[in-house]
Amino acid sequence: MLILSNEEIESFLSIKTCIETLEQAYKSWDKGTAINRPRTDLVLPSPNESGVYAFKSMEAGLVDPPIVALRVNSDIIRWRQQGGRMLKTKVPAAPGNKYVGLVMLFSTENGEPLAIFPDGVVQRMRVASSSALAARYLAREDASTLAIFGSGWQAGSHLPAMCAVRNIKKVRVYSPTKANREAFAKAMAQKVTAEVRPVGDPEEAARGADVIATTTNSLSRVVSPEWVKPGVHLTCVRVPELGEETIRKVDRLIIHTHKHAPENYVAGFGDEGIEAHDAIDIIRKGPGQAASLLVEHPFWLAAPELRELITGKVPGRASAEETTCFLNNIGVGLQFAAVGAAVYSEAKKRGVGHEIPTDWFLESVHP
Amino acid sequence: MLILSNEEIESFLSIKTCIETLEQAYKSWDKGTAINRPRTDLVLPSPNESGVYAFKSMEAGLVDPPIVALRVNSDIIRWRQQGGRMLKTKVPAAPGNKYVGLVMLFSTENGEPLAIFPDGVVQRMRVASSSALAARYLAREDASTLAIFGSGWQAGSHLPAMCAVRNIKKVRVYSPTKANREAFAKAMAQKVTAEVRPVGDPEEAARGADVIATTTNSLSRVVSPEWVKPGVHLTCVRVPELGEETIRKVDRLIIHTHKHAPENYVAGFGDEGIEAHDAIDIIRKGPGQAASLLVEHPFWLAAPELRELITGKVPGRASAEETTCFLNNIGVGLQFAAVGAAVYSEAKKRGVGHEIPTDWFLESVHP
Repeated sequence: MLILSNEEIESFLSIKTCIETLEQAYKSWDKGTAINRPRTDLVLPSPNESGVYAFKSMEAGLVDPPIVALRVNSDIIRWRQQGGRMLKTKVPAAPGNKYVGLVMLFSTENGEPLAIFPDGVVQRMRVASSSALAARYLAREDASTLAIFGSGWQAGSHLPAMCAVRNIKKVRVYSPTKANREAFAKAMAQKVTAEVRPVGDPEEAARGADVIATTTNSLSRVVSPEWVKPGVHLTCVRVPELGEETIRKVDRLIIHTHKHAPENYVAGFGDEGIEAHDAIDIIRKGPGQAASLLVEHPFWLAAPELRELITGKVPGRASAEETTCFLNNIGVGLQFAAVGAAVYSEAKKRGVGHEIPTDWFLESVHP
Repeated sequence: MLILSNEEIESFLSIKTCIETLEQAYKSWDKGTAINRPRTDLVLPSPNESGVYAFKSMEAGLVDPPIVALRVNSDIIRWRQQGGRMLKTKVPAAPGNKYVGLVMLFSTENGEPLAIFPDGVVQRMRVASSSALAARYLAREDASTLAIFGSGWQAGSHLPAMCAVRNIKKVRVYSPTKANREAFAKAMAQKVTAEVRPVGDPEEAARGADVIATTTNSLSRVVSPEWVKPGVHLTCVRVPELGEETIRKVDRLIIHTHKHAPENYVAGFGDEGIEAHDAIDIIRKGPGQAASLLVEHPFWLAAPELRELITGKVPGRASAEETTCFLNNIGVGLQFAAVGAAVYSEAKKRGVGHEIPTDWFLESVHP
């Protein structure tokens, strides 16, 4: 069984490979030659006073390549009130102040475990690749100006991903902290051929952009409805970055998947899974209230899915003037199966990573 | 992170420890200080012509000890018609003709992965321990004669488990193949103080028994309704071993859990999980029929659960003459959390297993 690190994966995994692999996987999913088990979260108190413990799992399988991926996260999560907003952060509580997110790959040919690796690099690249795939079908073909909101991990993967599907010549980066946007623009300029310029005014970033990508962790709107000009394509990693008013302004809307929120299994709230984005909503209500926690489904959930766009079941952009939008609303295990398969195949080809005996993970007894 | 083998676990894990640990876990589950995510199966075609691929997962967490267990199985499954019956077998398709079933443990204190080990030994001991726990509350206190049907793995764990909760003096073993029942009786005689006798007639095995335990892989009845005599306790690992007529005869019925069957996610059958014991039922119906596959819930599903019996929410045996029955109808991740925690603590204490760097499974990047 192969063990890989984030650094090793980052050294060879290209955003182009991720995008192409994912495109095939969405087609397979739509056709029924891939299958996805939606995310579930297991939530319980932690002896760690920093927060609540959450174990997240999702899995998916492809017929070709014959692989199944399981992705799990084992997190201490802290919710805290700040300036009237509820912020949710993961606490790096594991030894060395680290996080725990893992992808395990299994062969569907003989069942054996093939690889295990941290999910970080794949996680951000799969999100950006799905956004880029949507842009391939929704952005103007001649799109050349990109506005990026945010300067973190997701910004760092979205920028090259957008450049991989459109001939982007100018990138304007807005992030509230000057030092952050400048450092980010400088780093990104090394990675893409486009000119990357930091700007201090969000409206200036958006003005005249063919593609506006929000890649922040904001829970409130960062794109004003007035910025939705003819021909623009919007894309976000969190729905609240755009917000209802902005989303309603676009002509054509596509979402990642119709699954709205994970099933949360929360200690003290009975045995049934409760659909919620954040277990804190459930915990706040108190035990015995699980049944009353029906999540309201937002209007945009009726929009078609990315896979339908990719297979042509629903049309992409119809004219140069149309305004389009992609909501990367929730992740799916399928992304880890697709990108994971590419990671595994590339690592084997290059001899990267280290092997531990597969036999440790096998058994002679019928389980 | 600790890696353990089935042999290592078997060397130190006692059935008594499993039973006590599980008893606490059921109490916690009932109280809401443990949480369980029901089993899901991911099913898709395999390039291996022997069968269909199935990936099974379940997980559960305890507040005390602060642990989460994930159990997965990665199997090639063959269904075949034999003598008018559908038989389901796992194909040992992994290198060295092996199976793949794994338990992973995580700390809910800091999120770190603690251990990984094959599920085989724990799997059979947790099933037997749950049966024994039920017998602790349902069998006559003076039960001294045990009839065991079957001579395989489950029989091998049930026999000592029953001896751990009742002062069993005589065990009669029935299994259709003479050599099997004789070898089994001989092996078991070394493990328990009771006299263990193989018998060639199932009725003879059952006659006068205080406890009848069926531990076969039969999909048809092995215990006739006429054998339900006053004071007897019945227990099975598969409901069809007893069958409706026999089950209806008992005065007091307890089941393991109200969850009837796992959610199956089957390639080609849409995105929704379909409740079914065997995906072959779904595959036989053909695509597009998923919605019509509502599983009928059997009458016995209305019986109380084991955890309610253990916490005293429902009473156990009321008189020496009462007939009682426990249906070990489906497994839960909670069993792996409870027994897994005991395995981990015992292995650490004894210095068994080998450590691999936990850091391989951690990451600095926020996933």
